[in-house]
Amino acid sequence: MRMYDLIMKKRNGGTLTEEEISYMIAAYTADRIPDYQMSAMMMAIYFKGMTQKETVALTMAMAQSGDMMDLDGIEGVKVDKHSTGGVGDKTSIALTPMVAACGVNIAKMSGRGLGHTGGTIDKLESFEGFSTGITAEQFKRQVNEIGIAIMGQTLDIAPADKKLYALRDVTATVDNMSLIASSIMSKKLASGADAIVLDVKTGSGAFMQEEEDAFALAREMVTIGNRAGRKTIAVVSDMDQPLGCAVGNALEVQEAIATLKGEGPEDFTELCMTLGSYMLIAGGQAEDEKEARKMLAAVIADGSALKKLEMFVQAQGGNPAAVLNPDLLPKASIVEEIPAPKDGFIGKIDCQEIGICSLILGGGRETKDSAIDLSVGLVLHRKTGDAVAFGESLATIYANDRKKLDMARERFLNAYHITEEKVQKNALIKGIVTEAS
Amino acid sequence: MRMYDLIMKKRNGGTLTEEEISYMIAAYTADRIPDYQMSAMMMAIYFKGMTQKETVALTMAMAQSGDMMDLDGIEGVKVDKHSTGGVGDKTSIALTPMVAACGVNIAKMSGRGLGHTGGTIDKLESFEGFSTGITAEQFKRQVNEIGIAIMGQTLDIAPADKKLYALRDVTATVDNMSLIASSIMSKKLASGADAIVLDVKTGSGAFMQEEEDAFALAREMVTIGNRAGRKTIAVVSDMDQPLGCAVGNALEVQEAIATLKGEGPEDFTELCMTLGSYMLIAGGQAEDEKEARKMLAAVIADGSALKKLEMFVQAQGGNPAAVLNPDLLPKASIVEEIPAPKDGFIGKIDCQEIGICSLILGGGRETKDSAIDLSVGLVLHRKTGDAVAFGESLATIYANDRKKLDMARERFLNAYHITEEKVQKNALIKGIVTEAS
Repeated sequence: MRMYDLIMKKRNGGTLTEEEISYMIAAYTADRIPDYQMSAMMMAIYFKGMTQKETVALTMAMAQSGDMMDLDGIEGVKVDKHSTGGVGDKTSIALTPMVAACGVNIAKMSGRGLGHTGGTIDKLESFEGFSTGITAEQFKRQVNEIGIAIMGQTLDIAPADKKLYALRDVTATVDNMSLIASSIMSKKLASGADAIVLDVKTGSGAFMQEEEDAFALAREMVTIGNRAGRKTIAVVSDMDQPLGCAVGNALEVQEAIATLKGEGPEDFTELCMTLGSYMLIAGGQAEDEKEARKMLAAVIADGSALKKLEMFVQAQGGNPAAVLNPDLLPKASIVEEIPAPKDGFIGKIDCQEIGICSLILGGGRETKDSAIDLSVGLVLHRKTGDAVAFGESLATIYANDRKKLDMARERFLNAYHITEEKVQKNALIKGIVTEAS
Repeated sequence: MRMYDLIMKKRNGGTLTEEEISYMIAAYTADRIPDYQMSAMMMAIYFKGMTQKETVALTMAMAQSGDMMDLDGIEGVKVDKHSTGGVGDKTSIALTPMVAACGVNIAKMSGRGLGHTGGTIDKLESFEGFSTGITAEQFKRQVNEIGIAIMGQTLDIAPADKKLYALRDVTATVDNMSLIASSIMSKKLASGADAIVLDVKTGSGAFMQEEEDAFALAREMVTIGNRAGRKTIAVVSDMDQPLGCAVGNALEVQEAIATLKGEGPEDFTELCMTLGSYMLIAGGQAEDEKEARKMLAAVIADGSALKKLEMFVQAQGGNPAAVLNPDLLPKASIVEEIPAPKDGFIGKIDCQEIGICSLILGGGRETKDSAIDLSVGLVLHRKTGDAVAFGESLATIYANDRKKLDMARERFLNAYHITEEKVQKNALIKGIVTEAS
């Protein structure tokens, strides 16, 4: 088999066989196909697309290019959850204890964040001592004991995807639905869960700004997951404004804790209920959304979800006292309000800009090696559609550096648009994509 | 300027500016743009094409990427001729003395061949002692003195094209009309002639097998040449069967000499007359084809064209006696006829296959460093449309190795199709492409 012939075939609109795709990915991972041929192939795929069968084959080949996590020692159905990412997305921290408290095992691999705010692991490190550096054995034992564990990506998960993504990133071949879907799903498949619930974001703060594209991506990923033998469901949700109110690592942890107490923001709570319901359904613990919601409401009401977070933090070396006493989480030295410059209603919020405010304050990473300040960020007091009067606080800003605070505030005020006319609120849940849909 | 942005622009159907193309080619030549980005760009161009303006800019940028031949010391209009290549194409050897005898200066850079038969330089080396290793000064002096000189490509002509072509060759991005045209024309522009006559071949032995594609390429090249300020005319000619009868280096030289004596094959003579006419017109020595043909016929009839070849061979160190006495050219040790296996008419000839017969005999190069046997090859006695009786010779084969001869004969017989019904001869000249057309 020659890569040249495969490029020519795809360029001419042909369909690559499973064997051809396997060869291509294996040889590329082993550096036997040069980057310049692969980038030509990626551009040909950009123009000619891939069939569902090709996309599934590509995903499987990339999943199998490195280590495949073996979760066999863990009892019951293992459900994974993945979000395409957004601003203020602390969902995993509240959602996984809720679901675990309902009897679905959470065995999750997670990464650090690059960009606006930290990733789930960074956020969890707000609990002093918390570590994801556990062995596979510890990981499995913990899931069997308390139903929840998160480990860092120590394994060599989908190296083909890593290599290919880096190449696509510099050759203008990222934005193709099949390639995006296979990149995400290859890592999920290699992570070993039986079922996967996807949170596909859409709006100004999401990778998929258009709702139509988000649904297309959701459908593509659901098809891949199911064809690969993993029950897969996608929720398409709004990311036209930050999720919840807190943006910044420790602040988001605090909001997740509040949510587990039933005191979280309405939108964030609703997203946790929706994603959690489909995780319970996928995990075989509930028949339908109605039953699942009841179960989730119960574990919040009786405190068992919060208790699960406590156990989880303790099991991984973190200080569990911070769950009940958020004063023990990292705290910023400067706390200021951002008053509204005029009366009106909150119109459009440039969602990405709010993420960048947190990044400026020190809450995110600009490069892989940047250190993160867990204490900084923002807590929004007004969201799209809310009324505000001159001088009322739009948000509280948490900083450790006066200059950075000033920069972030200026940027924040440019991102918050106040209009005279009342603005419609966006629907949070745009739709559910299952195999049948 | 970032290559990434240029790839994205082209991918999205945009038009690159002259500045962007110059940057891209200069940076790529200097290894500041990696192959993987350039191959993605080439694939994007394959799908999105280039405007005439972009194609001209690309050609100019590649022409200027290395040395530009300076022909300023040469008097009069310098006319260059380029053929897209084919089997039995010894045109330059007969044509340039004809044109030079009519007063048009020929200052040509030429290369060695890779493939079927040798290039013009290889063929000219059939004259013992002939060398193209002359200095630019000698070269110019010789043109001024006798009106004709050929030098090898000692200069670093269009290195960007060399690098880019090698990349396209392994990434399935060769066959795009704008890229092919700019590759050819960049070398021609860098070679410094004032006017260029192109011989664009079409048919089974040509790179452009379809007539339509050959015309498209011709139009593209004529546009580039004229926009770059060089008077450019293209002749589209048949290469569905070998040109003339001789295929092989010394055999082709012999046929070229015969043609200069007025005893050449009809098709080859006609092509020389047509190309020669447009060279005289481009060089300002004739008003129209009628006048030019008269002049060319005259220099054949009075022996001055043949004399010009003699002077040319002598000036570059070759044995001029071989012009009048072809017995002094390299001779093969085995000469055999290939009898027709049945009665009939010559139908299709697999033209490339005839070239490969010559290659098998030792007359071409398989790799850059192969040595060439100048004496071997074939002389065809029947061409498409000709009648043949069982046992009559289809061709004479010249070899120095019995095994190679047997292999070539077998291949030859498979390439020559004899049919029962009379076959129409192909028109030799398919059309002329000028700026106005």
